[in-house]
Amino acid sequence: MLSSISRLAFASTLALTAALLPTAGVAQQAPLSAQESDPRVMGWMQGFPPPADKIITQPDSVYFSFPRLRWSVCHLREFLPTEEISRGTGAPVPLPYLSPSAFADERATIDALTFTPIGGSAPMTWEQSLYANYTDGILVLHKGKVVYERYFGCLDEGGKHAAMSMTKSVTGLLAQILVAEGKLDETRRVRDIIPEIGNSAFASATIRQVMDMTTGVKYSENYSDPNADIWLYSKAASPLPKPEDYTGPDGYWEYLQQVAPEGRHGDAFHYKTINSDMLGWIISRVTGKSVTELASERLWQRMGAEQDAYQTVDGKGVPFAGGGISAGLRDLGRLGLLMLNKGEINGERLFPAAVSERIAKGGDPAKFSGFPTIPGGSYTSQWWVFHNKHGAYAARGVHGQTIYVDPTAEMVLVRFASFPTAQNGRIDPTSLPAYQALAEYLMAKD
Amino acid sequence: MLSSISRLAFASTLALTAALLPTAGVAQQAPLSAQESDPRVMGWMQGFPPPADKIITQPDSVYFSFPRLRWSVCHLREFLPTEEISRGTGAPVPLPYLSPSAFADERATIDALTFTPIGGSAPMTWEQSLYANYTDGILVLHKGKVVYERYFGCLDEGGKHAAMSMTKSVTGLLAQILVAEGKLDETRRVRDIIPEIGNSAFASATIRQVMDMTTGVKYSENYSDPNADIWLYSKAASPLPKPEDYTGPDGYWEYLQQVAPEGRHGDAFHYKTINSDMLGWIISRVTGKSVTELASERLWQRMGAEQDAYQTVDGKGVPFAGGGISAGLRDLGRLGLLMLNKGEINGERLFPAAVSERIAKGGDPAKFSGFPTIPGGSYTSQWWVFHNKHGAYAARGVHGQTIYVDPTAEMVLVRFASFPTAQNGRIDPTSLPAYQALAEYLMAKD
Repeated sequence: MLSSISRLAFASTLALTAALLPTAGVAQQAPLSAQESDPRVMGWMQGFPPPADKIITQPDSVYFSFPRLRWSVCHLREFLPTEEISRGTGAPVPLPYLSPSAFADERATIDALTFTPIGGSAPMTWEQSLYANYTDGILVLHKGKVVYERYFGCLDEGGKHAAMSMTKSVTGLLAQILVAEGKLDETRRVRDIIPEIGNSAFASATIRQVMDMTTGVKYSENYSDPNADIWLYSKAASPLPKPEDYTGPDGYWEYLQQVAPEGRHGDAFHYKTINSDMLGWIISRVTGKSVTELASERLWQRMGAEQDAYQTVDGKGVPFAGGGISAGLRDLGRLGLLMLNKGEINGERLFPAAVSERIAKGGDPAKFSGFPTIPGGSYTSQWWVFHNKHGAYAARGVHGQTIYVDPTAEMVLVRFASFPTAQNGRIDPTSLPAYQALAEYLMAKD
Repeated sequence: MLSSISRLAFASTLALTAALLPTAGVAQQAPLSAQESDPRVMGWMQGFPPPADKIITQPDSVYFSFPRLRWSVCHLREFLPTEEISRGTGAPVPLPYLSPSAFADERATIDALTFTPIGGSAPMTWEQSLYANYTDGILVLHKGKVVYERYFGCLDEGGKHAAMSMTKSVTGLLAQILVAEGKLDETRRVRDIIPEIGNSAFASATIRQVMDMTTGVKYSENYSDPNADIWLYSKAASPLPKPEDYTGPDGYWEYLQQVAPEGRHGDAFHYKTINSDMLGWIISRVTGKSVTELASERLWQRMGAEQDAYQTVDGKGVPFAGGGISAGLRDLGRLGLLMLNKGEINGERLFPAAVSERIAKGGDPAKFSGFPTIPGGSYTSQWWVFHNKHGAYAARGVHGQTIYVDPTAEMVLVRFASFPTAQNGRIDPTSLPAYQALAEYLMAKD
């Protein structure tokens, strides 16, 4: 890893928002367990100063590698320049909770729920799954009330956690809102909105193709290849001044201007982060606002949020629309409620019902493959759609982040986690069936 | 400036929290006026992307030079890693205001107030002084009510602004609270609390000497001298990984361990930022909390703050106790009210009355010199005390930042500014007499 330090230094943890890769069959040494790797147990950054071997510093190959990442997911702003997503200066609107005694009863019941992991044979309890997934925080809302909430590791109710690629779903939601309001025509080509996209492969893609990641663009995230596009993107995205001999793109948007084609637009879903940053640029061009400003104005300032969120930026102040947000657990719960309740929260309408409906409907499953834990699924407007019997859909980010919306069970689940590897394909087997079991339990109570 | 780019890159704008230098007699070309240099007029960072010559980027020799600094003072987190000073997740307590019509009347009256600048002969109006001082935000509280509030340039009521060396006064306030509560003995030597301070000149200083900056420590901020201590401090403080050939101190605290003596402890006040960082370390050692945590727990979470604040950090996550805070204007108004009302706000006591009393009493004016605009003044617990007929005292930061507390007039004034140069000695002549005139006006109304 040492040889990549200079290359990675102060990159926007971009490399680390890696694709949601399918489960790989690579044998690995068992990492420390969730309990063993708890940052409080590890002793990271405790003391003034902490012992030398307990200090977590740059570069990201250090601070964002397991087990250190279990501390860093709650502290990204301490490593990187960021922009605020402001909640404004008014009073938050507290989420409704079950009564304390009902809450305690419900927690005990939920913790004891059992399910069978994908590909497994032995049942697992809900509580076991929290540790299996290195959960840092989990919140469950049923019919608008918090029925379950727990914190672990680096997180507490006043803390913020990296949302990783759930950021894409915020970007996609903003875009879908603009589409529903008639401010963004999804049938237009990128070059019609951003003429300076030039000869980039993005130029001829439609907005909808960008939103659904069905563009034909070259972008490899093969970390073992020193010429992989991810490294160039990381260099472009670094907020540091470029080295004097650097001649590559400076910032997310210059990178997007030189993307080569690969395949045909519209043919298939390929999970490539650059689509999300392309969408962020489109949103900003159309609205005259940064994605942080827009997320603040349209969501955080109006949903009763109790914390500001923030988003990492490149060297020109452009927020990382593909992975840069950190936020409070409950505030992402509010975002999930907004999706479930089709744009309404606290008796106020924030966006047209068509927004949630369009996302819940999903994309074309025929164009979707490569994710064994999401058979028959699709990806649309930067959200993952399961096309299961409950019509569930989700925001997802590496290392186990999710906002899971189950319209049938009227359930919203938010989980922050710091799973040792970036592969959600390894996390889904003990997550998705657990969510389904919980949804069925909650429905059975009604 | 170009030769200093690599040296300055990603320093914690440390060089730019320069001493509050006395007015120098150097003739300079007149800079752009406040109106001409308004960031909205200049067009900084407008557009997606902004025109190339309107993008503000690293290093700090670029982003923190006038006129760009007029934008950057509201956006430091977009350049630097930071830690949050959390307000918690509850509801803010709004500041009381005059009625809208009384407020409008009062504003018109105050804007028309006149005073004579120090060393001047012609009178100036209050409103003229706001532009003369490149004011970004100004808030005046009289008897606990907001009677005047205006925003300019980069700032609005939801924004945050660099507090610069007013940060020292937050650090000093926290220390004074610990002293009043018996948790920090100001007569002890630094080495008794931080044994690993080793042979540093700080080792034999008392805590009170550190609090009052009467230590005998070598620290030069001569920017034209490439070997000046400020450059080494900047390198130590940079949050970036150190170059491979770097052998100097890493972080604020390692720097403090190698400070050489200069003069005798206790003899005289010398405004040297390293005292504030020494004090921050002492506070953290004594409390087991970072200064950001402590400022959150003791102040921001309890004073009804409406915004989180934040503080820049070094490469090891240590907050810059000498200059790193950015905060909302009204929240610093709450801090000023706490000082004026001797530890009480919103009917709650946050710290003993002795804290404000000790600070208001001041240090030894006989040890204070070199600040022509503060004749007979003193510096104690990191606050400036004027020893004037109103018993006023202040937090002060370069480029025109102040929290000015006038106990006689029951007035608190907070000003954020982005004056072209770092010298408060140039700003005081059109500020301090204006504050006095306003205080007298408000008293005369009673």
